[in-house]
Amino acid sequence: MSERTKHIISIYVRNRPGVMSHVSGLFTRRGFNIDSIAVGTTEQPEVSTMTIVMHGNDNDLVQFKGQLLKLPDVIELKTLPYHSSVVRELLLVRVKATADNRMELLAIVDVFEGKVSELTDETMLIEVNGNNRRIKGILNMLQPFGIIEMARTGQIALGFEADH
Amino acid sequence: MSERTKHIISIYVRNRPGVMSHVSGLFTRRGFNIDSIAVGTTEQPEVSTMTIVMHGNDNDLVQFKGQLLKLPDVIELKTLPYHSSVVRELLLVRVKATADNRMELLAIVDVFEGKVSELTDETMLIEVNGNNRRIKGILNMLQPFGIIEMARTGQIALGFEADH
Repeated sequence: MSERTKHIISIYVRNRPGVMSHVSGLFTRRGFNIDSIAVGTTEQPEVSTMTIVMHGNDNDLVQFKGQLLKLPDVIELKTLPYHSSVVRELLLVRVKATADNRMELLAIVDVFEGKVSELTDETMLIEVNGNNRRIKGILNMLQPFGIIEMARTGQIALGFEADH
Repeated sequence: MSERTKHIISIYVRNRPGVMSHVSGLFTRRGFNIDSIAVGTTEQPEVSTMTIVMHGNDNDLVQFKGQLLKLPDVIELKTLPYHSSVVRELLLVRVKATADNRMELLAIVDVFEGKVSELTDETMLIEVNGNNRRIKGILNMLQPFGIIEMARTGQIALGFEADH
């Protein structure tokens, strides 16, 4: 049995009623271990993309791909190796911020190449995009200040051109 | 009947098998008009967030909320008005780029506050996050250069603190 590792599966699906529940039903029934899923629109209104990050060995990946390709609304399927792709996600997070610690917070936002979208005398709304490591890193640094609320997308990915 | 407009519904769900297919099955069966959906993790591994952008009148929203709250794995539900929230999505896009048009492309990336993640002598990989208008705007500007591939997250949102 091969090693368990992260795989990215990117599919294009027809925007028909039920396509989301067919795909997500597949995870459930087959017990696949899904780390993240992102659903986005494309230039064609009738087509959506779904980027699925799964955890498993090569056999799990083959099985999962086979099952996905059987779904009538899956138009195209691509897999990408997690550790040699550009993988990104987006975080919006509101933290407690006062005049006393504002500079300290801004320095952290700067290190993680984030942006401040809203500032009040008690809070700061930060947006940052990056790989999973960066998102986890800034969350760890913001934790002690007090996280009021957050929203986070799933991960999306494109392969490296240089590897083609 | 009230005006049809965009609404954001943000839910926290327990990460149990079937929760995704229950939520997406709801869209299908009830025929709700979903613009975008983003699924993300939270600081608690057993809890995920789902941000749903739907199009409908106030009655549709009330109905949809009621149905969601009936699902056993929905822990918390919040709605946000689309036009007075910080709404963001993330785009990864690879375009054709040569030495001749590279400067022109970089100027566009700069205007839309994007970043270049990879550059080869024939291509440029651009990442940009922003509201739906910004994402549509840069895609319109990149179109003529030739889009090779793209991946896009759903929209996520937080309310404005100043409105609280």
